[in-house]
Amino acid sequence: MNQLTKEAEEFRGKHVADIVQKLNELSSEAAAFIVARLPIDVAAEVFDHSSLDEPQDILASLDASRAAAILDAMAADRLAYLFRDMEEPPREQLLALLTSEARSVVDSLLTHPEGSAGSLMTTEFVSVPSNWTIGETLKHVREVEGARETIYAIYVIDPTTRRLEKSVSLRRLISGDLHAPVGSVARYDAPITVLPQADREEVAHLISEYDLLAIPVVDEKRHVLGIVTVDDVIDAMIEASTEDAQKFGGMEALDEPYPDIGFLTMLKKRAGWLAVLFLSEMLTASAMQHFEDELERAVVLTLFIPLIMSSGGNSGSQATSLIIRALALGELRLKDWWRVALREAPTGAALGSFLGVIGMARIAIWQEAGIFDYGPHWFLIALTVGLALVAIVTFGSLAGSMLPFALKRLGFDPASASAPFVATLVDVSGLVIYFSVALLVLQGTLL
Amino acid sequence: MNQLTKEAEEFRGKHVADIVQKLNELSSEAAAFIVARLPIDVAAEVFDHSSLDEPQDILASLDASRAAAILDAMAADRLAYLFRDMEEPPREQLLALLTSEARSVVDSLLTHPEGSAGSLMTTEFVSVPSNWTIGETLKHVREVEGARETIYAIYVIDPTTRRLEKSVSLRRLISGDLHAPVGSVARYDAPITVLPQADREEVAHLISEYDLLAIPVVDEKRHVLGIVTVDDVIDAMIEASTEDAQKFGGMEALDEPYPDIGFLTMLKKRAGWLAVLFLSEMLTASAMQHFEDELERAVVLTLFIPLIMSSGGNSGSQATSLIIRALALGELRLKDWWRVALREAPTGAALGSFLGVIGMARIAIWQEAGIFDYGPHWFLIALTVGLALVAIVTFGSLAGSMLPFALKRLGFDPASASAPFVATLVDVSGLVIYFSVALLVLQGTLL
Repeated sequence: MNQLTKEAEEFRGKHVADIVQKLNELSSEAAAFIVARLPIDVAAEVFDHSSLDEPQDILASLDASRAAAILDAMAADRLAYLFRDMEEPPREQLLALLTSEARSVVDSLLTHPEGSAGSLMTTEFVSVPSNWTIGETLKHVREVEGARETIYAIYVIDPTTRRLEKSVSLRRLISGDLHAPVGSVARYDAPITVLPQADREEVAHLISEYDLLAIPVVDEKRHVLGIVTVDDVIDAMIEASTEDAQKFGGMEALDEPYPDIGFLTMLKKRAGWLAVLFLSEMLTASAMQHFEDELERAVVLTLFIPLIMSSGGNSGSQATSLIIRALALGELRLKDWWRVALREAPTGAALGSFLGVIGMARIAIWQEAGIFDYGPHWFLIALTVGLALVAIVTFGSLAGSMLPFALKRLGFDPASASAPFVATLVDVSGLVIYFSVALLVLQGTLL
Repeated sequence: MNQLTKEAEEFRGKHVADIVQKLNELSSEAAAFIVARLPIDVAAEVFDHSSLDEPQDILASLDASRAAAILDAMAADRLAYLFRDMEEPPREQLLALLTSEARSVVDSLLTHPEGSAGSLMTTEFVSVPSNWTIGETLKHVREVEGARETIYAIYVIDPTTRRLEKSVSLRRLISGDLHAPVGSVARYDAPITVLPQADREEVAHLISEYDLLAIPVVDEKRHVLGIVTVDDVIDAMIEASTEDAQKFGGMEALDEPYPDIGFLTMLKKRAGWLAVLFLSEMLTASAMQHFEDELERAVVLTLFIPLIMSSGGNSGSQATSLIIRALALGELRLKDWWRVALREAPTGAALGSFLGVIGMARIAIWQEAGIFDYGPHWFLIALTVGLALVAIVTFGSLAGSMLPFALKRLGFDPASASAPFVATLVDVSGLVIYFSVALLVLQGTLL
């Protein structure tokens, strides 16, 4: 352990994030050895950091008094986050180490559902009664600085009703008149707030839109329950965009980083959607069975099935990813669906015509150059492929753009409209479109 | 314009974000009418807000002295952002309104490529020489508060070399001893910095990892060029995840919100990738031409082509979205590729076996229930489908997970590995795998 003692020495004065990165490379016993040698406030910051892997294992490896001291110095929101997903053991054993005050704060934070504003908030904020002066407020801020997550936003409370009146920034306080009432430097009449049940996307949207460093979480009576700070929102945003990316890839969102997921959990997260998509895609086999006679007579038609179906899926995937993001960013609302439809139809038709021309040219060139013989009716086959591409790419763009709207309308997350989901939807209809076009064009010749 | 005058009145005391939202609903002339009636500092904040649509059109509709006053009061980073993409006119005309000082700041900010730390930074930060006391620093901070983007991070500079020595937070300053040297309350020996050429993902990563409110941008000699604040990073993160989502959907990233994109620009952004994918997917037609004899003899095989191909594409899309995110978040590095391969191969095999069993059951049930007659060799066909699914889903998971690594190794953005890209890759190989399995299983019976 000599090496580790030396490392613990070297950690003094290092950034917390760097300490965390180093601890993540060690076993939980070795990490606990180092944590035991850090000053308590630094150790608490290490556990407050969102990047620390397996904090409960490290805590469980520490002796009880050390673990209790660290838990006591941790931020309330991180403490709640830590206990939210903790397994048994060491959950009960560590909970017992909390002071009764901390225990009741954690218990109340844990009542909020995961991902809500209430679950992200910390109770360690600065609030002062509205009858205080700026001077009194600054004195208070200096005293409590060490025990608050942020002091840059100060919440001014009605001394009788305890309702939130104003939000004041430290930058305006320190340049204000010390004898003026604290509320006099408030920038706005009504501070921006969220309810505890708001989801983290909404919190992130408000923080980014109003350029806030923290947002107060209030109940219906405007009592401040806690605050969500900008650094927690950034963590939540990163998590949310990871989940959206995984959903769009066609699977359930993972709760943990890729390398930390167990084999069986990974299978479970992926198999569900794969099976649903597989069962839906079976409809393509049924559709093709329906056209079996045509297939027997014109096997040449099958050559282009993958090409045509994938073009529909690709254009659908483009449209879906566009609309999911535009909905998430608030650029589009539910009521805009027909505007989008009116836009995607001509876009799809233009893109389909473009691909259709390439497809027809391909068949003509292969035929004329003698690379492959599509038979005497090659031109009609090319025409079938070209027209089918126009129809299917138009349909793909329309279906892909409407799917997120439909999901949102039905109360689902629009981000569940994954690329594979759209592709499957378009594949089945695409086959029917292709064979219908073929019947129209080739009736009397090949079919 | 009476209605508008009334609205301008009502905007007093409103949040800037709310004013911006309202202005975005108006024509640029009507918006200019309102902006002309706002106090200069509020008007400047409106133009500093990243959500304002078409700021250059509103500025061009204002009279020159008003526009000049607003430009003068705007933050340097927003000013540079505004001029970066501005069209001619009104670019020259508005540039002429800048003070020569502002003009030279904007010119120097514009030398940094878009999306780099240098292009995101503002030059309006607080720096003090290291021989100042905390008292002197606080006095200075109070004086310059109105003209700085943030005063919560203060940069301590060597008075001779002008190099960055420390970074001090306002919260530690206000609770410090007024006669102590300013650097004495610095938390860490060396502040976290970025070079101007760092990209915005790296800036976002550092800000989120080290829980910073601002990060200084320094040159090689550690002279501070500017700072990037957390609100700009949030905007940049939202933009980056939108671009990644659009790329993963299989198109070029848009520079503007979906409703603001012109029809032709939209076509251009989507047609490129669609055409590339279409041309690659043509290989499926070539592959199938190669197996034309087999197709003629066993048309029944074609029934399962879409089903089998899409399963490969879906599993590939899952794996790709997982690996792109894990790479973006730094959970995986380039050197981890073989670890991922060793993981995805058994995962793919397990998922493929799962789908294979469902597929074989489907054929057996349809055959036994008399829904469809796959002929006397139906069991061998089912076996072909099952084995092909195992092979193709394994291949899809492997190819999908390796593609982002390969792109990154070649210097491309791993996020270019879109779901359609993977599907196309897997489609062509999937067909070859399917027919190869069929030849093996059905040789001597159907083939």
